[in-house]
Amino acid sequence: MCLTEVKMTRTELFNTIQKKKSFLCVGLDTDITKIPQHLLKTEDPIFEFNKQIIDATKDFAVSFKPNMAFYETQGVKGWISLEKTINYINQTCPDIFTIADAKRGDIGNTSKMYAKAFLETLNFDSITVAPYMGEDSVKPFMEYKNKWVILLALTSNEGSKDFQIGNNLYQQVLTTSKSWSSPDNMMYVVGATKAEMLSDIRKIVPDSFLLVPGVGAQGGSLNDVAKHGMNKQCGLLVNSSRGIIYASSGENFAEKAREEAMKLQKEMEVLLAQYL
Amino acid sequence: MCLTEVKMTRTELFNTIQKKKSFLCVGLDTDITKIPQHLLKTEDPIFEFNKQIIDATKDFAVSFKPNMAFYETQGVKGWISLEKTINYINQTCPDIFTIADAKRGDIGNTSKMYAKAFLETLNFDSITVAPYMGEDSVKPFMEYKNKWVILLALTSNEGSKDFQIGNNLYQQVLTTSKSWSSPDNMMYVVGATKAEMLSDIRKIVPDSFLLVPGVGAQGGSLNDVAKHGMNKQCGLLVNSSRGIIYASSGENFAEKAREEAMKLQKEMEVLLAQYL
Repeated sequence: MCLTEVKMTRTELFNTIQKKKSFLCVGLDTDITKIPQHLLKTEDPIFEFNKQIIDATKDFAVSFKPNMAFYETQGVKGWISLEKTINYINQTCPDIFTIADAKRGDIGNTSKMYAKAFLETLNFDSITVAPYMGEDSVKPFMEYKNKWVILLALTSNEGSKDFQIGNNLYQQVLTTSKSWSSPDNMMYVVGATKAEMLSDIRKIVPDSFLLVPGVGAQGGSLNDVAKHGMNKQCGLLVNSSRGIIYASSGENFAEKAREEAMKLQKEMEVLLAQYL
Repeated sequence: MCLTEVKMTRTELFNTIQKKKSFLCVGLDTDITKIPQHLLKTEDPIFEFNKQIIDATKDFAVSFKPNMAFYETQGVKGWISLEKTINYINQTCPDIFTIADAKRGDIGNTSKMYAKAFLETLNFDSITVAPYMGEDSVKPFMEYKNKWVILLALTSNEGSKDFQIGNNLYQQVLTTSKSWSSPDNMMYVVGATKAEMLSDIRKIVPDSFLLVPGVGAQGGSLNDVAKHGMNKQCGLLVNSSRGIIYASSGENFAEKAREEAMKLQKEMEVLLAQYL
Protein backbone atom coordinates (compact mmCIF):
# COMPACT_ATOMS: atom_id res chain seq x y z
CA MET A 1 0.00 0.00 0.00
CA CYS A 2 1.21 3.47 -0.85
CA LEU A 3 1.45 5.44 2.38
CA THR A 4 1.06 8.79 0.66
CA GLU A 5 -2.50 7.79 -0.19
CA VAL A 6 -3.53 7.68 3.46
CA LYS A 7 -5.97 10.53 3.92
CA MET A 8 -9.48 11.16 5.12
CA THR A 9 -11.77 14.02 4.18
CA ARG A 10 -14.71 15.07 6.36
CA THR A 11 -17.12 13.19 4.13
CA GLU A 12 -14.96 10.07 4.13
CA LEU A 13 -14.77 10.20 7.91
CA PHE A 14 -18.55 10.48 8.14
CA ASN A 15 -18.94 7.59 5.70
CA THR A 16 -16.66 5.46 7.86
CA ILE A 17 -18.65 6.38 10.96
CA GLN A 18 -21.88 5.33 9.24
CA LYS A 19 -20.36 2.12 7.91
CA LYS A 20 -18.85 1.09 11.23
CA LYS A 21 -21.73 2.54 13.29
CA SER A 22 -19.08 3.92 15.59
CA PHE A 23 -17.36 7.19 16.41
CA LEU A 24 -14.86 5.56 18.72
CA CYS A 25 -11.24 6.65 18.95
CA VAL A 26 -8.96 4.25 20.80
CA GLY A 27 -6.21 6.08 22.68
CA LEU A 28 -2.88 4.26 22.60
CA ASP A 29 -1.52 5.64 25.89
CA THR A 30 0.76 2.66 26.18
CA ASP A 31 2.58 2.59 29.51
CA ILE A 32 5.34 0.00 29.87
CA THR A 33 4.51 -0.33 33.59
CA LYS A 34 0.88 -1.19 32.87
CA ILE A 35 1.04 -3.68 30.03
CA PRO A 36 0.73 -7.42 30.73
CA GLN A 37 3.85 -9.00 32.19
CA HIS A 38 4.15 -11.73 29.56
CA LEU A 39 4.77 -9.09 26.85
CA LEU A 40 7.89 -7.83 28.57
CA LYS A 41 9.79 -10.81 27.18
CA THR A 42 9.14 -9.73 23.58
CA GLU A 43 11.62 -7.62 21.62
CA ASP A 44 9.44 -4.50 21.61
CA PRO A 45 6.74 -4.90 24.29
CA ILE A 46 5.08 -1.54 23.55
CA PHE A 47 4.68 -2.28 19.86
CA GLU A 48 3.60 -5.86 20.55
CA PHE A 49 0.91 -4.56 22.92
CA ASN A 50 -0.25 -1.92 20.41
CA LYS A 51 -0.33 -4.41 17.55
CA GLN A 52 -2.60 -6.75 19.47
CA ILE A 53 -4.83 -3.87 20.66
CA ILE A 54 -5.08 -2.54 17.09
CA ASP A 55 -5.97 -5.97 15.68
CA ALA A 56 -8.52 -6.55 18.44
CA THR A 57 -10.31 -3.19 18.30
CA LYS A 58 -10.04 -1.96 14.71
CA ASP A 59 -13.46 -3.33 13.75
CA PHE A 60 -15.13 -1.12 16.35
CA ALA A 61 -13.03 2.03 16.07
CA VAL A 62 -12.79 4.76 13.44
CA SER A 63 -9.64 6.29 14.87
CA PHE A 64 -6.45 5.45 16.78
CA LYS A 65 -4.69 8.07 18.84
CA PRO A 66 -1.18 7.32 20.12
CA ASN A 67 -0.26 9.73 22.91
CA MET A 68 3.28 10.97 22.21
CA ALA A 69 4.25 11.40 25.87
CA PHE A 70 4.03 7.67 26.52
CA TYR A 71 6.55 6.97 23.74
CA GLU A 72 8.90 9.88 24.44
CA THR A 73 9.23 8.81 28.04
CA GLN A 74 11.05 5.70 26.75
CA GLY A 75 13.56 7.78 24.75
CA VAL A 76 14.86 6.35 21.46
CA LYS A 77 13.25 2.96 22.14
CA GLY A 78 9.87 4.62 22.55
CA TRP A 79 10.24 6.53 19.30
CA ILE A 80 10.99 3.24 17.52
CA SER A 81 7.82 1.69 19.02
CA LEU A 82 5.86 4.75 17.86
CA GLU A 83 7.16 4.51 14.29
CA LYS A 84 6.32 0.82 14.14
CA THR A 85 2.85 1.49 15.54
CA ILE A 86 1.85 4.20 13.06
CA ASN A 87 3.32 2.21 10.17
CA TYR A 88 1.36 -0.84 11.28
CA ILE A 89 -1.90 1.15 11.44
CA ASN A 90 -1.28 2.76 8.06
CA GLN A 91 -0.51 -0.61 6.50
CA THR A 92 -3.30 -2.68 8.02
CA CYS A 93 -6.15 -0.23 8.66
CA PRO A 94 -6.78 1.97 5.60
CA ASP A 95 -10.13 3.12 7.02
CA ILE A 96 -8.71 4.34 10.34
CA PHE A 97 -8.19 8.07 11.01
CA THR A 98 -4.89 8.49 12.86
CA ILE A 99 -4.23 11.19 15.45
CA ALA A 100 -0.82 12.15 16.80
CA ASP A 101 -1.78 13.37 20.26
CA ALA A 102 1.17 15.71 20.59
CA LYS A 103 -0.26 19.09 21.66
CA ARG A 104 2.54 20.93 19.88
CA GLY A 105 2.71 24.59 18.88
CA ASP A 106 5.62 27.02 18.51
CA ILE A 107 6.82 29.91 16.32
CA GLY A 108 6.33 29.35 12.59
CA ASN A 109 9.68 27.82 11.63
CA THR A 110 9.49 25.43 14.61
CA SER A 111 5.85 24.42 14.08
CA LYS A 112 6.86 23.66 10.49
CA MET A 113 9.36 21.13 11.86
CA TYR A 114 6.75 19.56 14.16
CA ALA A 115 4.32 19.37 11.23
CA LYS A 116 6.94 17.59 9.15
CA ALA A 117 7.70 15.19 12.03
CA PHE A 118 4.13 14.04 12.53
CA LEU A 119 2.28 14.64 9.26
CA GLU A 120 5.11 13.71 6.88
CA THR A 121 7.85 11.61 8.52
CA LEU A 122 5.39 9.62 10.65
CA ASN A 123 2.48 10.17 8.22
CA PHE A 124 -0.31 10.70 10.76
CA ASP A 125 -3.61 12.05 9.38
CA SER A 126 -3.81 14.69 12.10
CA ILE A 127 -2.12 16.22 15.11
CA THR A 128 -3.40 17.90 18.26
CA VAL A 129 -2.11 21.47 18.53
CA ALA A 130 -2.10 23.96 21.44
CA PRO A 131 -3.48 27.40 20.51
CA TYR A 132 -1.60 29.60 23.02
CA MET A 133 0.86 31.02 20.47
CA GLY A 134 -1.82 31.97 17.93
CA GLU A 135 -2.32 31.79 14.19
CA ASP A 136 1.24 31.61 12.86
CA SER A 137 2.00 28.76 15.28
CA VAL A 138 -0.93 26.71 13.90
CA LYS A 139 -0.74 27.53 10.17
CA PRO A 140 2.26 25.33 9.30
CA PHE A 141 0.23 22.27 10.33
CA MET A 142 -2.56 23.31 7.95
CA GLU A 143 -0.28 23.44 4.94
CA TYR A 144 -0.52 19.68 4.48
CA LYS A 145 -3.30 18.78 2.07
CA ASN A 146 -5.73 16.17 3.35
CA LYS A 147 -4.31 16.40 6.86
CA TRP A 148 -6.02 17.84 9.92
CA VAL A 149 -5.24 20.10 12.85
CA ILE A 150 -7.07 19.26 16.06
CA LEU A 151 -6.89 22.42 18.14
CA LEU A 152 -7.24 22.40 21.93
CA ALA A 153 -10.38 24.30 22.92
CA LEU A 154 -11.91 23.11 26.18
CA THR A 155 -9.92 20.30 27.75
CA SER A 156 -11.19 17.61 30.11
CA ASN A 157 -8.96 18.36 33.09
CA GLU A 158 -9.46 20.39 36.25
CA GLY A 159 -6.91 22.99 35.04
CA SER A 160 -9.22 23.98 32.17
CA LYS A 161 -10.77 26.35 34.72
CA ASP A 162 -7.55 28.33 35.09
CA PHE A 163 -7.40 30.01 31.68
CA GLN A 164 -9.85 28.36 29.25
CA ILE A 165 -13.07 28.88 31.18
CA GLY A 166 -12.16 31.79 33.45
CA ASN A 167 -12.39 34.48 30.83
CA ASN A 168 -14.02 32.52 28.01
CA LEU A 169 -10.69 31.86 26.33
CA TYR A 170 -11.95 28.60 24.81
CA GLN A 171 -14.78 30.50 23.09
CA GLN A 172 -12.27 33.02 21.79
CA VAL A 173 -10.08 30.19 20.48
CA LEU A 174 -13.04 28.66 18.65
CA THR A 175 -14.18 31.99 17.19
CA THR A 176 -10.75 33.28 16.20
CA SER A 177 -9.48 30.01 14.71
CA LYS A 178 -12.57 29.77 12.49
CA SER A 179 -11.15 32.67 10.46
CA TRP A 180 -7.92 30.70 9.76
CA SER A 181 -9.46 27.37 8.91
CA SER A 182 -12.51 25.41 7.82
CA PRO A 183 -14.38 22.40 9.20
CA ASP A 184 -12.56 20.47 6.48
CA ASN A 185 -9.11 20.91 7.99
CA MET A 186 -9.67 21.74 11.65
CA MET A 187 -11.27 19.83 14.51
CA TYR A 188 -11.35 20.81 18.20
CA VAL A 189 -10.60 19.04 21.46
CA VAL A 190 -13.57 19.36 23.82
CA GLY A 191 -13.53 17.31 27.01
CA ALA A 192 -16.41 14.95 27.78
CA THR A 193 -16.29 16.18 31.37
CA LYS A 194 -17.73 19.46 30.05
CA ALA A 195 -20.60 17.88 28.07
CA GLU A 196 -23.12 20.44 29.28
CA MET A 197 -21.06 23.13 27.52
CA LEU A 198 -21.22 21.33 24.18
CA SER A 199 -24.50 23.01 23.16
CA ASP A 200 -22.88 26.43 23.42
CA ILE A 201 -19.80 25.19 21.58
CA ARG A 202 -22.03 23.89 18.76
CA LYS A 203 -23.39 27.42 18.33
CA ILE A 204 -19.86 28.59 17.46
CA VAL A 205 -18.64 25.57 15.45
CA PRO A 206 -21.78 23.78 14.21
CA ASP A 207 -20.04 21.81 11.46
CA SER A 208 -16.66 20.95 12.98
CA PHE A 209 -15.64 17.55 14.21
CA LEU A 210 -14.87 17.46 17.93
CA LEU A 211 -12.36 15.09 19.46
CA VAL A 212 -13.78 14.28 22.87
CA PRO A 213 -11.52 12.75 25.52
CA GLY A 214 -12.57 12.13 29.09
CA VAL A 215 -15.15 9.36 28.72
CA GLY A 216 -14.38 6.51 31.09
CA ALA A 217 -11.41 6.98 33.45
CA GLN A 218 -11.97 10.75 33.57
CA GLY A 219 -15.70 10.44 34.27
CA GLY A 220 -17.44 11.93 31.21
CA SER A 221 -20.74 10.51 29.94
CA LEU A 222 -21.08 9.25 26.37
CA ASN A 223 -24.84 9.88 26.36
CA ASP A 224 -24.41 13.51 27.37
CA VAL A 225 -21.71 14.04 24.75
CA ALA A 226 -23.93 12.66 21.98
CA LYS A 227 -26.99 14.55 23.20
CA HIS A 228 -25.27 17.95 23.28
CA GLY A 229 -22.53 17.53 20.71
CA MET A 230 -23.69 15.47 17.73
CA ASN A 231 -24.30 17.25 14.42
CA LYS A 232 -25.64 16.07 11.06
CA GLN A 233 -22.37 14.37 10.16
CA CYS A 234 -21.97 12.97 13.68
CA GLY A 235 -19.17 15.48 14.23
CA LEU A 236 -17.75 13.53 17.14
CA LEU A 237 -14.76 11.32 17.76
CA VAL A 238 -15.02 10.06 21.31
CA ASN A 239 -11.78 8.79 22.77
CA SER A 240 -11.32 6.04 25.30
CA SER A 241 -7.82 5.02 26.32
CA ARG A 242 -7.39 3.37 29.70
CA GLY A 243 -10.90 1.89 29.79
CA ILE A 244 -10.14 -0.16 26.69
CA ILE A 245 -6.43 -0.87 26.56
CA TYR A 246 -6.10 -1.78 30.25
CA ALA A 247 -9.42 -3.64 30.52
CA SER A 248 -7.36 -6.65 31.61
CA SER A 249 -3.75 -6.93 32.73
CA GLY A 250 -3.66 -10.64 31.93
CA GLU A 251 -2.86 -12.63 28.81
CA ASN A 252 -6.44 -12.00 27.64
CA PHE A 253 -5.86 -8.21 27.45
CA ALA A 254 -6.60 -7.99 23.71
CA GLU A 255 -9.80 -10.01 24.00
CA LYS A 256 -10.99 -7.84 26.90
CA ALA A 257 -10.03 -4.67 25.00
CA ARG A 258 -12.10 -5.94 22.07
CA GLU A 259 -15.08 -6.50 24.39
CA GLU A 260 -14.81 -2.98 25.83
CA ALA A 261 -14.46 -1.43 22.37
CA MET A 262 -17.46 -3.42 21.14
CA LYS A 263 -19.49 -2.33 24.17
CA LEU A 264 -18.79 1.33 23.37
CA GLN A 265 -19.50 0.76 19.67
CA LYS A 266 -22.90 -0.75 20.53
CA GLU A 267 -23.74 2.28 22.67
CA MET A 268 -22.61 4.55 19.85
CA GLU A 269 -24.74 2.64 17.34
CA VAL A 270 -27.81 3.38 19.47
CA LEU A 271 -26.86 7.04 19.84
CA LEU A 272 -26.22 7.45 16.11
CA ALA A 273 -29.68 6.02 15.38
CA GLN A 274 -31.17 8.31 18.00
CA TYR A 275 -29.56 11.64 17.13
CA LEU A 276 -28.43 11.51 13.51
CA MET B 1 30.77 12.57 36.31
CA CYS B 2 27.53 11.52 37.99
CA LEU B 3 24.65 12.84 35.90
CA THR B 4 22.25 12.91 38.80
CA GLU B 5 24.32 15.75 40.25
CA VAL B 6 23.44 18.06 37.35
CA LYS B 7 21.29 20.81 38.81
CA MET B 8 21.23 24.56 39.08
CA THR B 9 19.48 26.65 41.72
CA ARG B 10 18.58 30.30 41.14
CA THR B 11 21.61 31.41 43.13
CA GLU B 12 23.93 29.05 41.26
CA LEU B 13 22.58 30.34 37.97
CA PHE B 14 23.22 33.92 39.06
CA ASN B 15 26.72 33.00 40.20
CA THR B 16 27.42 31.46 36.79
CA ILE B 17 26.12 34.60 35.06
CA GLN B 18 28.45 36.75 37.17
CA LYS B 19 31.40 34.47 36.63
CA LYS B 20 30.93 34.24 32.87
CA LYS B 21 29.69 37.85 32.53
CA SER B 22 27.04 36.46 30.24
CA PHE B 23 23.34 35.61 30.23
CA LEU B 24 23.49 34.00 26.82
CA CYS B 25 21.50 30.92 25.90
CA VAL B 26 22.54 29.25 22.66
CA GLY B 27 19.59 27.67 20.87
CA LEU B 28 20.42 24.38 19.21
CA ASP B 29 17.77 24.56 16.45
CA THR B 30 19.83 22.22 14.34
CA ASP B 31 18.40 21.82 10.85
CA ILE B 32 19.95 19.11 8.68
CA THR B 33 19.31 21.26 5.58
CA LYS B 34 21.25 24.21 7.01
CA ILE B 35 24.37 22.64 8.50
CA PRO B 36 27.64 22.74 6.54
CA GLN B 37 27.84 20.25 3.69
CA HIS B 38 31.08 18.62 4.83
CA LEU B 39 29.36 17.35 8.00
CA LEU B 40 26.87 15.29 6.02
CA LYS B 41 29.57 12.67 5.52
CA THR B 42 29.85 12.02 9.25
CA GLU B 43 27.90 9.25 10.98
CA ASP B 44 25.59 11.63 12.87
CA PRO B 45 25.80 15.07 11.23
CA ILE B 46 23.39 16.74 13.67
CA PHE B 47 25.32 15.58 16.71
CA GLU B 48 28.66 16.39 15.08
CA PHE B 49 27.41 19.93 14.36
CA ASN B 50 26.07 20.35 17.91
CA LYS B 51 29.27 19.02 19.47
CA GLN B 52 31.40 21.54 17.62
CA ILE B 53 28.95 24.39 18.38
CA ILE B 54 28.90 23.42 22.07
CA ASP B 55 32.71 23.27 22.27
CA ALA B 56 33.03 26.59 20.44
CA THR B 57 30.46 28.60 22.41
CA LYS B 58 30.38 27.11 25.91
CA ASP B 59 32.80 29.70 27.31
CA PHE B 60 30.41 32.52 26.41
CA ALA B 61 27.08 30.88 27.19
CA VAL B 62 25.34 29.98 30.46
CA SER B 63 22.69 27.85 28.81
CA PHE B 64 22.05 25.55 25.84
CA LYS B 65 18.56 25.05 24.50
CA PRO B 66 17.95 22.24 22.00
CA ASN B 67 14.64 22.78 20.21
CA MET B 68 12.82 19.44 20.18
CA ALA B 69 11.04 20.01 16.85
CA PHE B 70 14.30 19.98 14.94
CA TYR B 71 15.16 16.54 16.31
CA GLU B 72 11.68 15.01 16.09
CA THR B 73 11.46 15.96 12.44
CA GLN B 74 14.24 13.42 11.80
CA GLY B 75 12.34 10.62 13.55
CA VAL B 76 14.33 7.98 15.46
CA LYS B 77 17.64 9.28 14.07
CA GLY B 78 16.84 12.74 15.40
CA TRP B 79 16.01 11.40 18.84
CA ILE B 80 19.39 9.62 18.89
CA SER B 81 21.15 12.89 17.99
CA LEU B 82 19.22 14.63 20.78
CA GLU B 83 20.21 12.03 23.38
CA LYS B 84 23.86 12.28 22.37
CA THR B 85 23.68 16.08 22.48
CA ILE B 86 22.22 16.38 25.99
CA ASN B 87 24.57 13.68 27.29
CA TYR B 88 27.52 15.53 25.77
CA ILE B 89 26.47 18.81 27.39
CA ASN B 90 25.89 17.15 30.76
CA GLN B 91 29.26 15.42 30.59
CA THR B 92 31.40 18.30 29.34
CA CYS B 93 29.68 21.47 30.62
CA PRO B 94 28.80 21.13 34.31
CA ASP B 95 28.18 24.89 34.57
CA ILE B 96 25.65 25.01 31.71
CA PHE B 97 21.91 25.26 32.40
CA THR B 98 20.08 23.00 29.93
CA ILE B 99 16.65 23.73 28.50
CA ALA B 100 14.47 21.25 26.62
CA ASP B 101 12.52 23.61 24.38
CA ALA B 102 9.52 21.32 24.07
CA LYS B 103 6.46 23.47 24.88
CA ARG B 104 4.63 20.46 26.26
CA GLY B 105 1.54 20.37 28.49
CA ASP B 106 -1.31 17.87 28.82
CA ILE B 107 -3.57 16.29 31.45
CA GLY B 108 -1.78 15.22 34.63
CA ASN B 109 -0.93 11.61 33.83
CA THR B 110 0.38 12.63 30.39
CA SER B 111 2.39 15.63 31.61
CA LYS B 112 3.96 13.24 34.11
CA MET B 113 5.21 11.16 31.17
CA TYR B 114 6.59 14.24 29.39
CA ALA B 115 8.29 15.31 32.62
CA LYS B 116 9.91 11.90 32.92
CA ALA B 117 11.00 12.01 29.27
CA PHE B 118 12.81 15.32 29.50
CA LEU B 119 13.76 15.84 33.16
CA GLU B 120 14.63 12.22 33.99
CA THR B 121 15.33 10.08 30.90
CA LEU B 122 17.14 12.89 29.05
CA ASN B 123 18.11 14.68 32.28
CA PHE B 124 17.56 18.27 31.15
CA ASP B 125 17.59 20.93 33.90
CA SER B 126 14.39 22.50 32.62
CA ILE B 127 11.61 22.30 30.07
CA THR B 128 9.42 24.90 28.37
CA VAL B 129 5.73 24.27 29.09
CA ALA B 130 2.54 25.67 27.51
CA PRO B 131 0.03 27.01 30.06
CA TYR B 132 -3.24 26.53 28.14
CA MET B 133 -4.38 23.47 30.13
CA GLY B 134 -3.76 25.06 33.54
CA GLU B 135 -2.30 24.07 36.88
CA ASP B 136 -2.64 20.28 36.84
CA SER B 137 -0.96 20.16 33.42
CA VAL B 138 2.08 22.05 34.75
CA LYS B 139 2.45 20.56 38.24
CA PRO B 140 3.97 17.19 37.21
CA PHE B 141 6.97 19.08 35.79
CA MET B 142 7.46 20.84 39.13
CA GLU B 143 7.70 17.62 41.08
CA TYR B 144 11.34 17.18 40.12
CA LYS B 145 13.63 18.66 42.74
CA ASN B 146 16.25 21.06 41.39
CA LYS B 147 14.58 21.16 37.98
CA TRP B 148 12.73 24.06 36.41
CA VAL B 149 9.56 24.77 34.49
CA ILE B 150 9.80 27.57 31.94
CA LEU B 151 6.20 28.60 31.30
CA LEU B 152 5.13 30.38 28.11
CA ALA B 153 3.88 33.85 28.95
CA LEU B 154 4.34 36.35 26.13
CA THR B 155 5.92 34.79 23.06
CA SER B 156 7.97 36.53 20.37
CA ASN B 157 5.78 35.72 17.36
CA GLU B 158 3.05 37.64 15.56
CA GLY B 159 0.42 35.17 16.80
CA SER B 160 0.99 36.29 20.39
CA LYS B 161 -1.58 38.98 19.58
CA ASP B 162 -4.34 36.43 19.02
CA PHE B 163 -4.84 35.20 22.56
CA GLN B 164 -1.95 36.29 24.82
CA ILE B 165 -2.21 40.05 24.35
CA GLY B 166 -5.83 40.46 23.21
CA ASN B 167 -7.41 39.98 26.61
CA ASN B 168 -4.30 40.15 28.79
CA LEU B 169 -4.02 36.39 28.97
CA TYR B 170 -0.25 36.56 29.44
CA GLN B 171 -0.71 38.72 32.52
CA GLN B 172 -3.26 36.26 33.86
CA VAL B 173 -0.83 33.38 33.22
CA LEU B 174 1.90 35.21 35.15
CA THR B 175 -0.40 36.10 38.06
CA THR B 176 -2.15 32.73 38.34
CA SER B 177 0.98 30.60 37.98
CA LYS B 178 2.69 32.55 40.79
CA SER B 179 0.31 30.82 43.19
CA TRP B 180 1.49 27.36 42.07
CA SER B 181 5.20 28.02 42.00
CA SER B 182 8.12 30.13 43.17
CA PRO B 183 10.91 32.01 41.38
CA ASP B 184 13.07 29.07 42.45
CA ASN B 185 11.31 26.54 40.23
CA MET B 186 9.55 28.56 37.53
CA MET B 187 10.82 30.88 34.82
CA TYR B 188 8.80 32.50 32.02
CA VAL B 189 9.21 32.85 28.27
CA VAL B 190 8.93 36.51 27.27
CA GLY B 191 9.80 37.44 23.69
CA ALA B 192 12.46 40.08 23.00
CA THR B 193 10.17 41.50 20.32
CA LYS B 194 7.96 42.70 23.18
CA ALA B 195 10.75 44.38 25.18
CA GLU B 196 8.67 47.48 25.92
CA MET B 197 6.22 45.25 27.83
CA LEU B 198 8.95 43.87 30.10
CA SER B 199 8.58 46.68 32.65
CA ASP B 200 4.95 45.75 33.22
CA ILE B 201 5.87 42.07 33.39
CA ARG B 202 8.50 42.85 36.02
CA LYS B 203 5.76 44.37 38.20
CA ILE B 204 4.05 40.95 38.30
CA VAL B 205 7.14 38.69 38.50
CA PRO B 206 9.96 40.86 39.87
CA ASP B 207 12.19 37.98 40.96
CA SER B 208 11.63 35.37 38.26
CA PHE B 209 14.11 34.48 35.58
CA LEU B 210 12.83 35.19 32.07
CA LEU B 211 13.90 33.19 29.03
CA VAL B 212 13.94 35.70 26.20
CA PRO B 213 13.92 34.45 22.62
CA GLY B 214 13.66 36.70 19.59
CA VAL B 215 16.98 38.58 19.67
CA GLY B 216 18.65 38.43 16.25
CA ALA B 217 16.73 36.69 13.45
CA GLN B 218 13.37 37.70 14.96
CA GLY B 219 14.41 41.35 15.41
CA GLY B 220 14.41 41.94 19.18
CA SER B 221 16.95 44.31 20.80
CA LEU B 222 19.30 43.10 23.52
CA ASN B 223 19.68 46.60 24.95
CA ASP B 224 15.93 47.05 25.33
CA VAL B 225 15.58 43.64 26.96
CA ALA B 226 18.27 44.43 29.53
CA LYS B 227 16.93 47.95 30.17
CA HIS B 228 13.36 46.81 30.85
CA GLY B 229 13.87 43.27 32.06
CA MET B 230 16.97 42.94 34.23
CA ASN B 231 16.52 42.44 37.97
CA LYS B 232 18.99 42.24 40.88
CA GLN B 233 20.00 38.70 39.98
CA CYS B 234 20.08 39.50 36.27
CA GLY B 235 16.89 37.47 35.87
CA LEU B 236 17.42 37.03 32.15
CA LEU B 237 18.50 34.26 29.83
CA VAL B 238 18.60 35.70 26.33
CA ASN B 239 18.49 33.15 23.57
CA SER B 240 20.09 33.35 20.17
CA SER B 241 19.81 30.42 17.79
CA ARG B 242 20.16 31.10 14.07
CA GLY B 243 22.38 34.18 14.53
CA ILE B 244 25.03 32.03 16.22
CA ILE B 245 24.77 28.50 14.90
CA TYR B 246 24.38 29.51 11.25
CA ALA B 247 26.84 32.41 11.33
CA SER B 248 28.73 30.57 8.59
CA SER B 249 27.73 27.66 6.40
CA GLY B 250 31.34 26.82 5.64
CA GLU B 251 33.94 24.64 7.33
CA ASN B 252 34.64 27.53 9.71
CA PHE B 253 31.08 27.41 11.15
CA ALA B 254 32.21 26.68 14.71
CA GLU B 255 34.80 29.46 14.70
CA LYS B 256 32.21 31.94 13.36
CA ALA B 257 29.66 30.74 15.92
CA ARG B 258 32.26 31.34 18.64
CA GLU B 259 32.80 34.89 17.35
CA GLU B 260 29.07 35.63 17.35
CA ALA B 261 28.63 34.17 20.84
CA MET B 262 31.61 36.19 22.07
CA LYS B 263 30.18 39.36 20.51
CA LEU B 264 26.90 38.87 22.38
CA GLN B 265 28.77 38.02 25.60
CA LYS B 266 30.73 41.27 25.35
CA GLU B 267 27.51 43.25 24.91
CA MET B 268 26.02 41.41 27.87
CA GLU B 269 29.10 42.16 30.00
CA VAL B 270 28.53 45.88 29.41
CA LEU B 271 24.82 45.61 30.17
CA LEU B 272 25.45 43.63 33.37
CA ALA B 273 27.86 46.34 34.55
CA GLN B 274 25.33 49.03 33.63
CA TYR B 275 22.12 47.61 35.14
CA LEU B 276 23.09 45.16 37.87
